[in-house]
Amino acid sequence: MQKADIGLIGLAVMGENLVLNMESKGFTVTVHNRTPEKTQKFAEGRAWGKNILPTYSLNDLAKNLKTPRKVMLMVKAGEPVDIFIEKLLEVLEPGDIIIDGGNSLYSDTIRRTKLVEEKGLLYVGAGVSGGEEGALNGPSIMPGGSGKAWKHIQPIFQTISAWVDEKPCCQWIGENGSGHYVKMVHNGIEYADMQLIGETYFLMKHLLGFNMVEMKDIFSDWNSGELESYLIEITADILSKTDQETGKPLLELIGDEAGQKGTGKWTSQESLDLGVAAPTIAEGVFARIISGAKKQREAAVEAFPNTDAKPSLDSKRIVDCLHQALFASKIIVYAQGFDLLRHASQQYGWELNLGEIASLWRGGCIIRAQFLQNITHAYEANPDLENLLLAPYFQKILKQNEEGWREIIALAIKHGLPIPALSSAISYFDGIRQPYLWTNLVQAQRDYFGAHGYGRIDKGGRFHTEWQKANDVVISEEI
Amino acid sequence: MQKADIGLIGLAVMGENLVLNMESKGFTVTVHNRTPEKTQKFAEGRAWGKNILPTYSLNDLAKNLKTPRKVMLMVKAGEPVDIFIEKLLEVLEPGDIIIDGGNSLYSDTIRRTKLVEEKGLLYVGAGVSGGEEGALNGPSIMPGGSGKAWKHIQPIFQTISAWVDEKPCCQWIGENGSGHYVKMVHNGIEYADMQLIGETYFLMKHLLGFNMVEMKDIFSDWNSGELESYLIEITADILSKTDQETGKPLLELIGDEAGQKGTGKWTSQESLDLGVAAPTIAEGVFARIISGAKKQREAAVEAFPNTDAKPSLDSKRIVDCLHQALFASKIIVYAQGFDLLRHASQQYGWELNLGEIASLWRGGCIIRAQFLQNITHAYEANPDLENLLLAPYFQKILKQNEEGWREIIALAIKHGLPIPALSSAISYFDGIRQPYLWTNLVQAQRDYFGAHGYGRIDKGGRFHTEWQKANDVVISEEI
Repeated sequence: MQKADIGLIGLAVMGENLVLNMESKGFTVTVHNRTPEKTQKFAEGRAWGKNILPTYSLNDLAKNLKTPRKVMLMVKAGEPVDIFIEKLLEVLEPGDIIIDGGNSLYSDTIRRTKLVEEKGLLYVGAGVSGGEEGALNGPSIMPGGSGKAWKHIQPIFQTISAWVDEKPCCQWIGENGSGHYVKMVHNGIEYADMQLIGETYFLMKHLLGFNMVEMKDIFSDWNSGELESYLIEITADILSKTDQETGKPLLELIGDEAGQKGTGKWTSQESLDLGVAAPTIAEGVFARIISGAKKQREAAVEAFPNTDAKPSLDSKRIVDCLHQALFASKIIVYAQGFDLLRHASQQYGWELNLGEIASLWRGGCIIRAQFLQNITHAYEANPDLENLLLAPYFQKILKQNEEGWREIIALAIKHGLPIPALSSAISYFDGIRQPYLWTNLVQAQRDYFGAHGYGRIDKGGRFHTEWQKANDVVISEEI
Repeated sequence: MQKADIGLIGLAVMGENLVLNMESKGFTVTVHNRTPEKTQKFAEGRAWGKNILPTYSLNDLAKNLKTPRKVMLMVKAGEPVDIFIEKLLEVLEPGDIIIDGGNSLYSDTIRRTKLVEEKGLLYVGAGVSGGEEGALNGPSIMPGGSGKAWKHIQPIFQTISAWVDEKPCCQWIGENGSGHYVKMVHNGIEYADMQLIGETYFLMKHLLGFNMVEMKDIFSDWNSGELESYLIEITADILSKTDQETGKPLLELIGDEAGQKGTGKWTSQESLDLGVAAPTIAEGVFARIISGAKKQREAAVEAFPNTDAKPSLDSKRIVDCLHQALFASKIIVYAQGFDLLRHASQQYGWELNLGEIASLWRGGCIIRAQFLQNITHAYEANPDLENLLLAPYFQKILKQNEEGWREIIALAIKHGLPIPALSSAISYFDGIRQPYLWTNLVQAQRDYFGAHGYGRIDKGGRFHTEWQKANDVVISEEI
């Protein structure tokens, strides 16, 4: 019997689609699922007649594989991964490779890499983005972990990944948890990007009273310009759909309580841990949380009805401003995400190639977008760039879009329309470019009640003042 | 020799001041410090001639104490607490009480309570707020942990705490980590409150060009009204101080890179874990992080100079609006903090008394404020209140202040002045009162690329659509 190139465990849709993707590119895949019925159904269904070998024990899975064996887990993040690693260690041999393709927390991947390497095997935590469709036709893949594994998995991963401009959307990210970390930040950016598009759609609806067709046309139009991206494209598509049952636009029938999984939350928590400002990503997560607080919302809608009249505005001008606001805010979100990656690279010693990461996000993944090549160019031109928005291209874009961005935010606030991400983005921008922030007062307060000390702008050192004394002339004492 | 009522370990300023506070109220205190020199210095200095017994071993400390022994740790949060607990377990007996008065993470306190109780002793994690001055003259104290310890420590803690309206600012909070949790949320609110005051001061300076004396007068005036609070009071005080060395206002000489310790970060991370929207608290933490990113800021100031001219505005009107913005936003921050406490109470089974928590913050602590009694009243009137801003008093305040709040934010955005907390607060308000949010689009997008499913507004159940099909009329299939 022909030996398989790779094994895959976990036949939910993402797993199945990855298998079919691999097989379609000429690889033989052996598969396994915790519940055998699922394996059988796949074998007799979508896998029928293909070079896909179903197995009903991990022993058989191991026997089916060429050495060094490569086994990819596509199971739920968390305990299931640990359970399968433990079981796989019983049937695999030193030199074999375990790959976790789920959305695992990077710190779990660090721990697992160590564990598996100690047994003489290799471990790869691979972020896979692109949803079901990407898994089938070419996802973006972010593998990290045991460096020695790369040459063995590279031929498969770079073949099944998306390709843009004759380059695969899959490159080796770095050591231990770096692949899952980069995927986590990808998802954090995705949260904020979706939130920004959501706010833009919402303002179009409320400020201009546009119907679905009008909005679809605008998003389609935007998708042929600087904003070209998968999320804009599917937004236009979504706006075009009519519900068969009611004949109404489907979007207007969809409930507004949004769910959230771990990765956006993790990105926000991690940015707080590393001391990196990523407030707009956090606002994206909180916005979903607010949407889900149904009981509070119902009471608040009753208590504080928005009786503001629909304004009479110049539609063309407002659509332009919305484009400016979305584009500028999107850049801020990417600046926050890449700043987090830059700090993580230093913190964990990963030597991340930020330009290459932007490049491999150009295809396959959810945040794939035209403008990512500008990020690649920015880091190619200056690998030590302090912040993305300082790159010449992004400076130009921000300056060009600033006016409409401000106008839209002021308008939304005036009319009582919530814009947590748009406004967080502009305050990040205005904060970072402000020569002297309000935080001198914060430092004075902290020294007042907690003797935390403060720096001075006119000399070095650290100082404390006995603020409580009645005297208005006080001493700034070096500490 | 007279036995001591309580022992205290850790003679930094907070520890020393708590000892002096206890002694001044008639309690005998035995003290210890890791470095004996510190103990000796205290004994020969501030403790001289007082009922304070220095010790140079934990054995002596234990011998000095009445049973059940009460030993309070005022050491750095983290490992030092664990080290001292271990050492104390060697010299204490079953029934004795260990109290951690530092800013420990609540989950550490949960673990330690279990550990100490398993040894037959009692453990208390007590949040202590009020800074150095509060420790000396009466802090706010939030003890939680082993319930049996309360009757033993109550006479001391309620005597040394601040008192307001003949009630001590110290009540038993609940089981295991609840005391430190409540202190953590107190600090999270403090972060956001300070940030809001900082932004208000900053806008006064930039929009109106006021000098220190003018701003001092305004904050003093505000402190005699609805905004009366410790933080407003010290802001006025800070604005009045002149640097002896230069003759300039001291505040204008203080560096704007603000520091942050763990509690604001923890509050934000915890709100994300529990799925509670506390974005304004997170913005407060991120604002400090931005202030500290000096290299990025210097480059951004150069790239994006704010060339906006100082506007010509009606000062009296703007000061009124600033008051409205600050007051309304402050209520939003407290609503977020108490929503987190409400969820934590359910999550951890603590049965927190939210009205009582507001009451014990009325004195001693950093966020002490006149208006906390309105929170107490709100929860007394309705202990199941879904969200603080739904209480009649807060509804009224928000409606009264909404107009000026919006005006200030629009003005700041227009003039390029960063207001991360003020704008986050208004988007929280506008979000929670919005009948139908942008998140229907988010749900559609998630179903489009990830088959996450969505709810419908016109019927129950969960649905999925094959969005990718070319057909514009689509099926919403129940899943």
